[in-house]
Amino acid sequence: MSVRVSVPLGDGSTLEDFDRSVAYSEGHFVPISEAKISVLDFGFTHSDVTYDVVHVWNGRFFELEAHLDRFFASMEKLRLDPGLTRDEIREILAECVRRSGFRYSYIGMVCSRGVPPRGSRDMRMCKNQFIAYALPFIYLFPPEKRERGVKAIISSFMRIPSASVDQRIKNYHWLDMVRSQWEAYDKGADTAFLLDMDGNLTEGPGYNVFIVKDGALLTARSNVLEGVTRKSVLQIAAELGVPARETDLKPEDLLSADEVFLSSTAGGVLPVTRVNERIYNNDAPGPVTSRVKEAYWLRHDQDWNATPIHY
Amino acid sequence: MSVRVSVPLGDGSTLEDFDRSVAYSEGHFVPISEAKISVLDFGFTHSDVTYDVVHVWNGRFFELEAHLDRFFASMEKLRLDPGLTRDEIREILAECVRRSGFRYSYIGMVCSRGVPPRGSRDMRMCKNQFIAYALPFIYLFPPEKRERGVKAIISSFMRIPSASVDQRIKNYHWLDMVRSQWEAYDKGADTAFLLDMDGNLTEGPGYNVFIVKDGALLTARSNVLEGVTRKSVLQIAAELGVPARETDLKPEDLLSADEVFLSSTAGGVLPVTRVNERIYNNDAPGPVTSRVKEAYWLRHDQDWNATPIHY
Repeated sequence: MSVRVSVPLGDGSTLEDFDRSVAYSEGHFVPISEAKISVLDFGFTHSDVTYDVVHVWNGRFFELEAHLDRFFASMEKLRLDPGLTRDEIREILAECVRRSGFRYSYIGMVCSRGVPPRGSRDMRMCKNQFIAYALPFIYLFPPEKRERGVKAIISSFMRIPSASVDQRIKNYHWLDMVRSQWEAYDKGADTAFLLDMDGNLTEGPGYNVFIVKDGALLTARSNVLEGVTRKSVLQIAAELGVPARETDLKPEDLLSADEVFLSSTAGGVLPVTRVNERIYNNDAPGPVTSRVKEAYWLRHDQDWNATPIHY
Repeated sequence: MSVRVSVPLGDGSTLEDFDRSVAYSEGHFVPISEAKISVLDFGFTHSDVTYDVVHVWNGRFFELEAHLDRFFASMEKLRLDPGLTRDEIREILAECVRRSGFRYSYIGMVCSRGVPPRGSRDMRMCKNQFIAYALPFIYLFPPEKRERGVKAIISSFMRIPSASVDQRIKNYHWLDMVRSQWEAYDKGADTAFLLDMDGNLTEGPGYNVFIVKDGALLTARSNVLEGVTRKSVLQIAAELGVPARETDLKPEDLLSADEVFLSSTAGGVLPVTRVNERIYNNDAPGPVTSRVKEAYWLRHDQDWNATPIHY
């Protein structure tokens, strides 16, 4: 493997001390253990909430503005307004990281509907709540899986359709993902890909899916989150001269692919070496996957769309 | 109207003092203001949680065992186990009510996945959390709407399909409902009914829907919560000699119905007098609706499936 060594080999949790995690909640910076929401908050009882997650690598936010763009677009679609400007939110996120001291961090920003007035069910009367937190960088998978490749299944659960919940709004409606994850565990796999109501490949818990076929990258075009890492991968493909496009993908496209990989803020480009009974590239990460992965981490070393944090 | 006068005319919130609400959280009885969950609880970030709501009327639980049946069935399907027996949960619910002193109450029981171990994303390693609370009885609609009838629209959002999230599991995946509710507000209506992917009527935010057509009651058979009040209505219909059945209902069935009503723990039988441009029964609750509503509240006076609370 030719992957850059700037990638820590351990879990994020071993690089940084979880107890130093800092949250912003109800207008104050607090230890993560004190960041809580009421059990009556509609963000809990109606999952009427949106969020985003950006990461900090070597003391710099990666693609912060892309995450803020999406977070503000999600809030607008859900008619959520925390009463904070983009500059104020940017500063709160940086301050969470600064106070934690983390140089490799996973930063959540959340806007929840809030608690309705006593005895009311009217969401128009809720004061929307903004919460943020900096945790140690969290990977989707442990080190050996990230290096050697992940084993996936095709879930029997259907991805929640965008006609019900617009998947471009980053949301916490994850039970379809959660039940798919249980199914994966039951079958000895690490994760699961969900199909939509038309039988097209969508995404999995926390990531978008790419396939490599005849030298080209393909990824689902609908019913998926427009992932920031997905966008980075499409840009990288263009730079590398690898054809790439968003399209409808059927399970047979997946199973007949040459390579498969995942894209996620929580780990970047992650090789998949098995889907159901299919084994790709002799059970090892494929060459195109490795090139894209290397380029992704190179962007970090080169301060691509980086926002430095002044500790 | 011949509805029994045991039904308080005001909002629940005006009958009882909200500040006396009691919750059970992390093994302790606490004021409702202290009942909170971590922002890292998968019950929040993945909406990996189930719940149920039972009501207390005149100091007695109504249909408590039916709600406990459903709550335990939901937990089993989601592989949630709070480590409490049914007897223990029944006693916690009663103790919440007892400590609040409420004689008209709305009692929530919640089982959430919990917070994963530091740096992990493995839901198998979470300690599941049980939360309960007794609030003053909360109605879906204010008094004049309950008496005169509610105005509904047919939503443009699709109900989340059971192929994605089994709607027999009582869940907090409500964004389809929430966005439908905004659409209703925008159109000057009170609430919205959602259709499923086949165009069949399903349910609305917090209730099942019944139509009365040619003297018979009809309600959706799939993609809906199996409501406890819905079941009561079906039993009452049998007692009254009114034919009733679960079936597929199209928007044209709804719009050509003689009467429409809702069923919910949060208010019982609630007349609907308008859907979109259609006005039913000269904009007043219909005769069958009123008979069913009367019988529903009569069951409360007659201690039907009642569990008394020893204050």
